[in-house]
Amino acid sequence: MATVSIPSAFASFTETWSPRLVAAVNDQHVKIAKLDGAFIFHAHPDSDELFYLLSGELTLEIESGDTVESVVMKAGDVYVVPRAVRHRPVARNAEVLMIERNDTVNTGDAEDRRRQRDWVDVRGR
Amino acid sequence: MATVSIPSAFASFTETWSPRLVAAVNDQHVKIAKLDGAFIFHAHPDSDELFYLLSGELTLEIESGDTVESVVMKAGDVYVVPRAVRHRPVARNAEVLMIERNDTVNTGDAEDRRRQRDWVDVRGR
Repeated sequence: MATVSIPSAFASFTETWSPRLVAAVNDQHVKIAKLDGAFIFHAHPDSDELFYLLSGELTLEIESGDTVESVVMKAGDVYVVPRAVRHRPVARNAEVLMIERNDTVNTGDAEDRRRQRDWVDVRGR
Repeated sequence: MATVSIPSAFASFTETWSPRLVAAVNDQHVKIAKLDGAFIFHAHPDSDELFYLLSGELTLEIESGDTVESVVMKAGDVYVVPRAVRHRPVARNAEVLMIERNDTVNTGDAEDRRRQRDWVDVRGR
């Protein structure tokens, strides 16, 4: 394989909530995405999901029983949402790198027009 | 869990070739390390290994039959060394983030004084 430049990959698109696949390692996918605004609450039944905030602002709202905890991230922060935990990203001009199992759909168990089974593979470009 | 700040984690140590565990996601470990100089050739029989070069210079020497290919990385680049492929990092003041299976030893199948089975866990600090 060739190297993949994360900055170049981010420069190659403008769409938000539209993950790009930058690497596969073991049975995991590494994706990047631009996030802006509020997503939907959803969970991934079979996969933890790591968020690494590269720039911008990101709050992960995490459901816990009847309450919602807000995880406020700063650029450079990493946070792992455990599998099956319902969560909602709320972002402002965020660029994130994500790690999750390679069969994971971005909207998890929720239905949404932003559901994207077929991410764009930017490897080898 | 709490968020982990990658910049703060890097600021917390000076040792080279001494991985710090920053996150576990599914059955993978996410580690950071400072690399300087040449490591040893080794392979991980059961794990791909992703390198994400955050700063500095890193060349991955990859064995292929009787030859060695050099993968010269720039800051912001990602490269995945497939499982069982012998490789040697050669670095200059590099800060890297790595993804590999959670039972992976940094020197793989090689014996070296820098072998480190017990990385330092910096989560929750």
